[in-house]
Amino acid sequence: MDFTEEAVDSRLVYRGRILTCKVDRVKLPDGRLAEREVVLHPGAVAIVAMDDAGRLLLVRQYRYPVGRELLEIPAGKLEPGEEPASAARRELEEETGYAAGNLESLGVFYTSPGFSNEKMYLYLATDLRPAAGKRDEDEFLALVRMSLSEARQKVRTGEILDAKTIVGILRAVDWGTVGRV
Amino acid sequence: MDFTEEAVDSRLVYRGRILTCKVDRVKLPDGRLAEREVVLHPGAVAIVAMDDAGRLLLVRQYRYPVGRELLEIPAGKLEPGEEPASAARRELEEETGYAAGNLESLGVFYTSPGFSNEKMYLYLATDLRPAAGKRDEDEFLALVRMSLSEARQKVRTGEILDAKTIVGILRAVDWGTVGRV
Repeated sequence: MDFTEEAVDSRLVYRGRILTCKVDRVKLPDGRLAEREVVLHPGAVAIVAMDDAGRLLLVRQYRYPVGRELLEIPAGKLEPGEEPASAARRELEEETGYAAGNLESLGVFYTSPGFSNEKMYLYLATDLRPAAGKRDEDEFLALVRMSLSEARQKVRTGEILDAKTIVGILRAVDWGTVGRV
Repeated sequence: MDFTEEAVDSRLVYRGRILTCKVDRVKLPDGRLAEREVVLHPGAVAIVAMDDAGRLLLVRQYRYPVGRELLEIPAGKLEPGEEPASAARRELEEETGYAAGNLESLGVFYTSPGFSNEKMYLYLATDLRPAAGKRDEDEFLALVRMSLSEARQKVRTGEILDAKTIVGILRAVDWGTVGRV
């Protein structure tokens, strides 16, 4: 059965620097109309970065929308026209000061497909070395290193609460990254 | 170091049926000002539901914001004042027609803490039995059953693209659910 919802009309309610919000009326499969509130997002990258000693590079930063600091894998929004792999290298350098000698895809996912189109491109970065440039001084964050098993434990205990970070750590565990690297 | 960002002012740009969007000016740790676009969300629940044969109950539904059907674990928004565990039981019944004899927490996470406060409460539901009520006729979705290992494989291949579903499946795998149930 086809559950496709077709837009009947679309109302722009906010166009910001990063986010755009719209309210669309859609036609449901049975012909009735429904309203959909949608947040358009430019997309983002997140990087499971592992050093030669098998430690993950995580960043602790304040997340204003949730009003607390979170421990996360390095991540950031796509710039207009930017390739996800380039964005991943850029964000890794800006947030950790390290360049990735090796970067491979760990897949993509949607963070909140019920209300947003945000698409997250996940990467595994290895063969890390200090980057030529400096860490971005505009970023208020602390670099934290820990083993994959310690990170996995922090997912279990709830010390790690960010979805992309949980996905990244559990995918790295699931894909047997420790053995492969 | 304390990275807390304090609101200087807040501007409401949209108040919808489900979402509220605001643009706040915040004071950074170094005293400079920055703008934060924030989407307020009521919070949500998601349920890893496993039948007595060890199969997961998934739902396939059209997700308008991303313009495609996704295969997800049952989930839904919190109603005003609703306890997450009650919402989990309600959503499981509405979306699958099954009641959970046993419901336990698999933790919480934030889906997109860079721009939204959406908090997801994750549950494991077992001892499933047909619910007294009927499935919600307003929901256009198809019920799909598969083993946990098949679901895990679909995470690896990218057939499962929804963050909460990936977190749910990988947590169930990581926590050794298969052996415990």
